[in-house]
Amino acid sequence: MPTHKLLLLPGDGIGPEVSAEVEKVLDRLAADGSARFEVERGLVGGCAIDAHGVPVSDADVARAAAADAVLLGAVGGPKWDGVPYEIRPEAGLLRLRKDLGLFANLRPAICHAALADASSLKRELVEGLDILIVRELTGGVYFGEPKEIVDLGNGQKRGIDTQVYDTYEIERIARVAFELARLRTGRVTSSEKRNVMKSGVLWHQTVTALHARDYSDVELKHELADALGMKLVQAPKRFDVIVTDNLFGDMLSDVAAMLTGSLGMLPSASLGEADPVSGRRRALYEPVHGSAPDIAGRGVANPLAMIGSLAMALRYSLDMAAEADRLERAISSALDAGHRTADLARPGETAISTSQMGDAVVAAL
Amino acid sequence: MPTHKLLLLPGDGIGPEVSAEVEKVLDRLAADGSARFEVERGLVGGCAIDAHGVPVSDADVARAAAADAVLLGAVGGPKWDGVPYEIRPEAGLLRLRKDLGLFANLRPAICHAALADASSLKRELVEGLDILIVRELTGGVYFGEPKEIVDLGNGQKRGIDTQVYDTYEIERIARVAFELARLRTGRVTSSEKRNVMKSGVLWHQTVTALHARDYSDVELKHELADALGMKLVQAPKRFDVIVTDNLFGDMLSDVAAMLTGSLGMLPSASLGEADPVSGRRRALYEPVHGSAPDIAGRGVANPLAMIGSLAMALRYSLDMAAEADRLERAISSALDAGHRTADLARPGETAISTSQMGDAVVAAL
Ligand SMILES: CC(C)[C@H](C(=O)O)[C@@H](O)C(=O)O
Ligand SMILES: CC(C)[C@H](C(=O)O)[C@@H](O)C(=O)O
Repeated sequence: MPTHKLLLLPGDGIGPEVSAEVEKVLDRLAADGSARFEVERGLVGGCAIDAHGVPVSDADVARAAAADAVLLGAVGGPKWDGVPYEIRPEAGLLRLRKDLGLFANLRPAICHAALADASSLKRELVEGLDILIVRELTGGVYFGEPKEIVDLGNGQKRGIDTQVYDTYEIERIARVAFELARLRTGRVTSSEKRNVMKSGVLWHQTVTALHARDYSDVELKHELADALGMKLVQAPKRFDVIVTDNLFGDMLSDVAAMLTGSLGMLPSASLGEADPVSGRRRALYEPVHGSAPDIAGRGVANPLAMIGSLAMALRYSLDMAAEADRLERAISSALDAGHRTADLARPGETAISTSQMGDAVVAAL
Repeated sequence: MPTHKLLLLPGDGIGPEVSAEVEKVLDRLAADGSARFEVERGLVGGCAIDAHGVPVSDADVARAAAADAVLLGAVGGPKWDGVPYEIRPEAGLLRLRKDLGLFANLRPAICHAALADASSLKRELVEGLDILIVRELTGGVYFGEPKEIVDLGNGQKRGIDTQVYDTYEIERIARVAFELARLRTGRVTSSEKRNVMKSGVLWHQTVTALHARDYSDVELKHELADALGMKLVQAPKRFDVIVTDNLFGDMLSDVAAMLTGSLGMLPSASLGEADPVSGRRRALYEPVHGSAPDIAGRGVANPLAMIGSLAMALRYSLDMAAEADRLERAISSALDAGHRTADLARPGETAISTSQMGDAVVAAL
């Protein structure tokens, strides 16, 4: 039985609380004899600033690169609002993404039947919703240079960011989307603003050419990012796999997440390129929700997005697809049995704690 | 009685059909003796490409600059998908915005009670919704340089766009938002991605400083653009005035528009700076919806967004606030009387034509 090396980066806010529940699940999987895990712990975000003066240390980046999978809670909070831009908590997360080459961010937006009423949309529009957003994660305006504030004198400053995409970056993320679509309903929607952005023109051309060359069995549609935002709100079930750039992906995946009515439920995976020899790929798994400083430390956060992120790690990094399925079924059973954390509880329903929800999943396992 | 000089640019797709209804309304206002209008006509978008080889001619830009208000239908359509980027239909609209200095784009997202059921959101979440998005329209990634595709050789290209904001651009749009908020509920939400973009850092600093200096009576909140997209879907009625940049404004205003359930209802105003001597400001009014090539030429488009855009022109450019109110009430009465174009009709309701809806508004006037 192989030993899987995991790096756990609980981070800030509710990160440590939801991470504790993932550790329970790992203990249970180990006790079952399903696998052996070697779990290291590290710091990212505000807690790393407090400890090391930087939002992630070189040592933790090296550990992340060596791990079979990184599990991250969440970063940031008002405590670090005043720190300089270069070492703000988010910079730790961005450095991990960039240094580990995690270009493919998979964000499923799934609406659990038991939770469909929690959506702000009408039930029939979201029940059974199952979208997969494939977001480019190491390029675009997040990392392009120049990125600076220039003092122009006379009290005037100029803020500059640069959106840059090269052909190969677009091709490799589009390939991920097409490959995943083949395992689903075979439909991809590619999104950009080619009517105002040159990077959007190149994105559209590159995706279209790759589709014709290697993936003509997959259905490909293009939507301008503004129109797609609109259509996601209007009729989300029309979409299956959506592939888009770093910034549009950030916004569209948040909108899609909110459609499901339960942000506290949504996991994500960020994957690097497969090593040509070993097939191994670097990977980081994290909930879509943030550090939620307003509820941190009270034991009321929903741990299911974090536990669902572990399920994605089992599937994509640890070659444990059967256990991933089992874990996802355990999450569903806990919900079907009526267990609800505060974010999910409707008027009249009793909310359980973070730890009780973790226990409910472990019991259902 | 002053004569108001209007330039009508019907554009492409359903643009000419909805523009014809605006002309009916203008005729009626003139017949009432409310005002005298001198209406010129010009070309923008695909029809201008067909006629002149460019998406807007220098002569029409000059006419637009000289008019008291420009009324624009919509631009674009599949017929012009193959034209070079520099002369695509949208470039005509973008040139008008830029050359006329129309930096302030006002996009109300209002949910008419009679139409609340058309929203994909639950009725109680959108009934009475009244948001005003104030979008910066002449800066940011839409116009920043470099904006190009570079050939890197080896089959690789690089697409580049540049997001640029100067202090004065942020200040003048924020001022518009604060001033408008004072006429409403006194609340402004400013949105950017300061956690990843330097232009967002400058945006946040500039809005915060201006608020402290000149508008501390207004309530100011900041939301990251991704979180705002989410919160708009979750609980839109929490927001009043939203101020944001060109690209985020494009996306967020489309999401907000769709929340109301009736894109065919939403007008917009794009305003320039007031002349320090005459107080006159250049202005262009257009519906938020596009050219809808799929239904063009069939006489079924909803003209109310275009007629609502005329109401905004009466209010902001022609000093005819009373007539603007009257026109907006006429739109509401036509709806209350049960008139519905195809986009608004629910199962069992009979849809009327574009022209019948125009007549219904004129009758209600
Ligand atoms: C925390 C922040 C830098 C990050 C992003 O913008 O990518 C977050 O919003 C996300 O979507 O993972
Ligand atoms: C047509 C297009 C260039 C335009 C934009 O992106 O600004 C449109 O989407 C809008 O919102 O007015």
